[in-house]
Amino acid sequence: MNQIKLHQSAIRDIHHGRNLTVVEPVNLYECSFGDDCFIGPFCEIQSDVTIGNRVRIQSHTFICSGVSIGDDCFIAHGVMFINDLFREGGPSRAPSDWKRTVIGRHVSIGSNATILPVRIGDDIVIGAGSVVTHDLSEPGVYAGNPARLLHPNQTGKTQET
Amino acid sequence: MNQIKLHQSAIRDIHHGRNLTVVEPVNLYECSFGDDCFIGPFCEIQSDVTIGNRVRIQSHTFICSGVSIGDDCFIAHGVMFINDLFREGGPSRAPSDWKRTVIGRHVSIGSNATILPVRIGDDIVIGAGSVVTHDLSEPGVYAGNPARLLHPNQTGKTQET
Amino acid sequence: MNQIKLHQSAIRDIHHGRNLTVVEPVNLYECSFGDDCFIGPFCEIQSDVTIGNRVRIQSHTFICSGVSIGDDCFIAHGVMFINDLFREGGPSRAPSDWKRTVIGRHVSIGSNATILPVRIGDDIVIGAGSVVTHDLSEPGVYAGNPARLLHPNQTGKTQET
Repeated sequence: MNQIKLHQSAIRDIHHGRNLTVVEPVNLYECSFGDDCFIGPFCEIQSDVTIGNRVRIQSHTFICSGVSIGDDCFIAHGVMFINDLFREGGPSRAPSDWKRTVIGRHVSIGSNATILPVRIGDDIVIGAGSVVTHDLSEPGVYAGNPARLLHPNQTGKTQET
Repeated sequence: MNQIKLHQSAIRDIHHGRNLTVVEPVNLYECSFGDDCFIGPFCEIQSDVTIGNRVRIQSHTFICSGVSIGDDCFIAHGVMFINDLFREGGPSRAPSDWKRTVIGRHVSIGSNATILPVRIGDDIVIGAGSVVTHDLSEPGVYAGNPARLLHPNQTGKTQET
Repeated sequence: MNQIKLHQSAIRDIHHGRNLTVVEPVNLYECSFGDDCFIGPFCEIQSDVTIGNRVRIQSHTFICSGVSIGDDCFIAHGVMFINDLFREGGPSRAPSDWKRTVIGRHVSIGSNATILPVRIGDDIVIGAGSVVTHDLSEPGVYAGNPARLLHPNQTGKTQET
């Protein structure tokens, strides 16, 4: 039988500031992190991802090429980012067709959320299990599939639906 | 460049009864298991989690601090539990703000379900892909986002929606 | 305290054609792959799974026993397949009760999708975060929970909802 081409998950060719904490196993390559970031176990973060300062990325999360995340964001567990909309009926093999995602500052994304290629502004909470299919700019709490605004930004509000 | 603070996923400081089977890699710490439990690969179970007897936790599942699970439960693949409702617009760093989840006996939770901090009674089935946002007490089958009762408990019913 | 029964994720007893690429850690056993397949990290693929040629299975995906996937499919990240409908109020321990899933050719399944035991025809796109609860035969783009047809098959259409 033919030999399997085996690769190992690893931390390869990343840039980072002070105080980066990582719980292995993870697969991180050609991405960058600011200061004081945390990455939990079983995460994959691909090339061409830029992450700011004081960002926590929890276990089981996947961040695809073309995502940037601002300072003071919290990405919970099992969050999946997407850059390919399968516009031609299947995956695009040309990276030039991949779409970018830009996440502002002080954004929290709940566990098991799915993030299509969008722009998310500052001071936004995405509820757990949501599917974000469009840009979100107004500060507040969003949830559902597709994610909709539940509460404009007010202290004491919640992601409960 | 500064050194990365690397930690390794491991099994650390857990309590367990007879016949615990684990498929590594997993990250389990300061949690407890009864007799005859199974934990699949790529799971994380945090501190202050109490799990009963004859519970199976399948691959890719994350169980956060503050969850208790009764006897004879089945937690499928990619299930995410949550203890922080982001009530102040982002993650709470004080564990005293985290909410607890209590799962009864003979509860089955389908794959890719998301469980907000709730109480789930005995003899309940949660369909795959559901988002549970409220307490569930009546025995039966629940599904959807948010999860709603599909069928009161009757033999032969299904989680299909 | 009793000894934990530890198993290690591994590649065991698989059949495969030419040019199989795998990023470890993965847990693959008693399944088969055609030529030119790719499997990303943190995947589990169980026994009695048959995968065709030129299939890519991305990170964090779980494929249960009883699934067959045709040629030229793309299974994105965090996709969970299901074979047990909990028809008797909990998991069936008899593999003879498990249901089969058949995926045709040139099917793309988006990240975080959940696939109940169904038949999916050729030339179908499943949007990210969808829950597929019924058979899908008409070529086109489906999304939502439960997944519904968004667009019949036409060049240039998208999985956006």
